[in-house]
Amino acid sequence: MFHYLCLIMGEFELIAQIQQLAQGLPTNGFEGIGDDCAVLEIGGGEALVFTADALCEGVHFLREAISARALGDKALAVNLSDVASMGVRPVAVLLSLSLPEGLSAGWVEELMEGFTALAHRYDVALIGGDTTRSHSGVVLNITAIGRGKTSHLKRRNAAREGDIVLVSDRLGASSAGLRDVLQGNPHTQLAHIHHHPIAEISAGQWLGARAEVHAMMDLSDGVASDLKHILKASAVGAEVEMCDIPVAEGATLHDALTGGEDYKLLLTVDQAMREQLMRDFEATFHRPLYPIGHITAAKELVWLEKGVPTTQDLVGFRHF
Amino acid sequence: MFHYLCLIMGEFELIAQIQQLAQGLPTNGFEGIGDDCAVLEIGGGEALVFTADALCEGVHFLREAISARALGDKALAVNLSDVASMGVRPVAVLLSLSLPEGLSAGWVEELMEGFTALAHRYDVALIGGDTTRSHSGVVLNITAIGRGKTSHLKRRNAAREGDIVLVSDRLGASSAGLRDVLQGNPHTQLAHIHHHPIAEISAGQWLGARAEVHAMMDLSDGVASDLKHILKASAVGAEVEMCDIPVAEGATLHDALTGGEDYKLLLTVDQAMREQLMRDFEATFHRPLYPIGHITAAKELVWLEKGVPTTQDLVGFRHF
Repeated sequence: MFHYLCLIMGEFELIAQIQQLAQGLPTNGFEGIGDDCAVLEIGGGEALVFTADALCEGVHFLREAISARALGDKALAVNLSDVASMGVRPVAVLLSLSLPEGLSAGWVEELMEGFTALAHRYDVALIGGDTTRSHSGVVLNITAIGRGKTSHLKRRNAAREGDIVLVSDRLGASSAGLRDVLQGNPHTQLAHIHHHPIAEISAGQWLGARAEVHAMMDLSDGVASDLKHILKASAVGAEVEMCDIPVAEGATLHDALTGGEDYKLLLTVDQAMREQLMRDFEATFHRPLYPIGHITAAKELVWLEKGVPTTQDLVGFRHF
Repeated sequence: MFHYLCLIMGEFELIAQIQQLAQGLPTNGFEGIGDDCAVLEIGGGEALVFTADALCEGVHFLREAISARALGDKALAVNLSDVASMGVRPVAVLLSLSLPEGLSAGWVEELMEGFTALAHRYDVALIGGDTTRSHSGVVLNITAIGRGKTSHLKRRNAAREGDIVLVSDRLGASSAGLRDVLQGNPHTQLAHIHHHPIAEISAGQWLGARAEVHAMMDLSDGVASDLKHILKASAVGAEVEMCDIPVAEGATLHDALTGGEDYKLLLTVDQAMREQLMRDFEATFHRPLYPIGHITAAKELVWLEKGVPTTQDLVGFRHF
């Protein structure tokens, strides 16, 4: 929800302070601090969810490395991913564009085409926003709104001892693609994946409807880092087998564990229902879910290498 | 809703194109294109409203001219104004901060203090957002959410022939204050008003509950420009008496007519109820509403000077 991807000035203190100031405020029925989205129940067994992201030129993307169309697509995909990872359907977005002088009309047109093409694909409304001049490069801000049954909402705090931990796809391709981009090769297959992440919009909603799925979130900072959010919110631990981590073609295990921006799903599932869920998922999406470990009562994350605990320190992706 | 305050590249075409692309998308129950906010009815006679604004350093504010605390206050006030001008209560905001390297922790702390002080004052929840690095200036993005009775919603398209046109306060102080700031005098009383706009959060909700109030919006670009939005949306015209425009102390009539960022309310009211409404408003808020003209069937805006039509061309405020 508060995505402090980029820790300004090493500002853990700032983040803590913002959260402290926010906690003093009323909630007005909104909840979900710590999840991918804030949640508002609206009656009739339904809820709305809300998330916001800022994408800044030079920080989150290089204008010379990504096409305007890909940027429009990715900016929206990342936000829809946050909504779908709560288990509900993205229904609307607000888009604010801050654009430097001298930007060509064609560039902006392509950006909007990439954005609206994805919005069309998932039937998402564009309900408002802002367009301003910027003295700070291109800045995109998106607020995404989702809607679904309250009973389908998946939160980070719902993992239970004994749950199986799964991921929804092979990992690390985006991180490997970013490496290509930074090395001056923005046209490789992996760079394409980095610029066109396929977020789990449909799978997230499908998994939302399954009661045996307990905790869920999207992988934006790498499983080594993101799993800790679920463990902390749920006050549990986990044992994860490194050899079971599904590594995308062209990526390394390190990419898969610590790479950012995969936008695949990380979930925990009732162990008794795991096989049924995996069968149904594969029958629906024609690809597997990948079990990588299980939830434990001990409040720590233990990485196993062929069953043997390893003390290797895994640090999640930092966006810069 | 779409606030194209800053017309990049003279980009009326871009705006038209974004709106065209957006119109091809589903609405998913959201409506209100052209109003200050998008509206979603949620059942039980209730609706939520949504609006987003971007504020960029060097475009919307000068960091050397406005204190961080005032900026935090103003950024929120402007968004709450959009919500209240729909006649409903602001309940929550998402805040995205893009901050350049080297910004002091104290500056950000003051910004957040200004922001949360106003949020406390109006019991608004801070439910999410983002914090990122920016490669040049400070960029703030705020999405505000309001909630209220569907029957209280005030839209721009509801003005009717014969309605009285009113404004909720004296106008032009913000514009006069901006002139002081740009002339290097950021500490005058008028500059203070420019940096600390008192948005009509309470008055907007109060007027929302009055059925005789038909159309309403907040004055962000000047009455000469903003009134045209109501006339166009309602397919009506108006006659407005320049001598009846309430001019703030220290401002000129030109400031009052064409100055931006006053964040006072512009409304149209059933003529038969005008006096009752004005009496009740004054009894509640201890200040008057100001009638400035009336709605006509002819689809044009006629400015009168002591009852005589004038052809003077009045152009609304441009933010830069």
